[in-house]
Amino acid sequence: MTQSADTRFLEQAQKMGYSFDGEIKIGGNYVPLVRDGHHLYVSGQIPRVENIVVVTGAVGAEVSLADAQKAAKVCVMRGLALLQRSLGSLERIQSVPRITVYVQSAPNFTQQSEVADGASEVLFHVLGAQAGAHSRTSVGVLQLPKNATVEIDLIASVKPD
Amino acid sequence: MTQSADTRFLEQAQKMGYSFDGEIKIGGNYVPLVRDGHHLYVSGQIPRVENIVVVTGAVGAEVSLADAQKAAKVCVMRGLALLQRSLGSLERIQSVPRITVYVQSAPNFTQQSEVADGASEVLFHVLGAQAGAHSRTSVGVLQLPKNATVEIDLIASVKPD
Amino acid sequence: MTQSADTRFLEQAQKMGYSFDGEIKIGGNYVPLVRDGHHLYVSGQIPRVENIVVVTGAVGAEVSLADAQKAAKVCVMRGLALLQRSLGSLERIQSVPRITVYVQSAPNFTQQSEVADGASEVLFHVLGAQAGAHSRTSVGVLQLPKNATVEIDLIASVKPD
Repeated sequence: MTQSADTRFLEQAQKMGYSFDGEIKIGGNYVPLVRDGHHLYVSGQIPRVENIVVVTGAVGAEVSLADAQKAAKVCVMRGLALLQRSLGSLERIQSVPRITVYVQSAPNFTQQSEVADGASEVLFHVLGAQAGAHSRTSVGVLQLPKNATVEIDLIASVKPD
Repeated sequence: MTQSADTRFLEQAQKMGYSFDGEIKIGGNYVPLVRDGHHLYVSGQIPRVENIVVVTGAVGAEVSLADAQKAAKVCVMRGLALLQRSLGSLERIQSVPRITVYVQSAPNFTQQSEVADGASEVLFHVLGAQAGAHSRTSVGVLQLPKNATVEIDLIASVKPD
Repeated sequence: MTQSADTRFLEQAQKMGYSFDGEIKIGGNYVPLVRDGHHLYVSGQIPRVENIVVVTGAVGAEVSLADAQKAAKVCVMRGLALLQRSLGSLERIQSVPRITVYVQSAPNFTQQSEVADGASEVLFHVLGAQAGAHSRTSVGVLQLPKNATVEIDLIASVKPD
């Protein structure tokens, strides 16, 4: 790939029709990202763009699989935006040891993995096959903050200086 | 701050009207805390004081937001008590890279972040702005062990010797 | 113990009547395990043996506690199988800093810890008291991928070379 991860991030944002340039707002008294040695712990991200949670409700009921996948992509783009601001460039990411994908689910909805694939696709596309490699857990929960359809947290590791 | 984190911990316990001096009981065949290099992984804590889970039920139904916040505070105080016993002093904590806050929620309750703020407030108050800085994920789950209203796990990092 | 962890793993698999020799299939576009320095992050495992999820449904409703414990054992055996393949031998595991146990629960089912004990028992039995020591979080969720009764992820640390 001749493009940098930062260029791919920008193109992905444009393709989605959202900007991640503004403040990445959080919903409480904590920090969006903690640096811990060579690791960055990113707080749970909901699909909020500026002040609006763009996908709300339970997938399998009022939300379609496609919209839930879009929500997962917005969550992970927010996480990448936070990493980019902290590190200066997404090129500094070595790997993403873990993402956890919480999906607000209708009782009979069992495609949480398919929802999470939206997030995984963005990680691989933006970071490439090596740095984008991640372990993943996806579960179906009853509710999420602000009625968000998806919430995703992640741990990224940074390349040695 | 001229007070130590351990003094603030004790004062916080007194203010809450609970003692965390006794055994921190756990509900199964595992260990309450694993030391892993400079990290301490604290098992999921429910708001149990001695033998009693002091806040039970779903927030948004039989439990108020204020009581759920109190539950979150008890969970995190238990976590701090375990860290204090393991390290000798809470002054040895460098940061809290992650807390995850599971909130037993009524279907329409969407203030999981506000519940988690109870835990965050205690972390900042006891550990101070630097060591108390933490990333956070809060989600709404259907049930928790022993019908607890909140369960919280966390990872703390230790200052180099 | 004179037996190796690998021998105990094999005997445990035989006792359960399952083979973990085949491909450990995953449900989406991610990797089953990420190596990050001395840590291995294992993706969320459901109780799938070859192509079949062997325990499905909500515990406390259509699934008994005993069957949910069996599901937890299968999840953790899959995790151990992945660790064994990555490391060559389970003897190389130093500890298991964290397992998280997601239990698909009926609304009034509050024995998530008892379900998770199935996983803990296998960890202690196969890895021994020291390497098998783990912190644990267990929660009750509304749904899981493929209607699985249990999903478990874990982080293992590796002995220095």
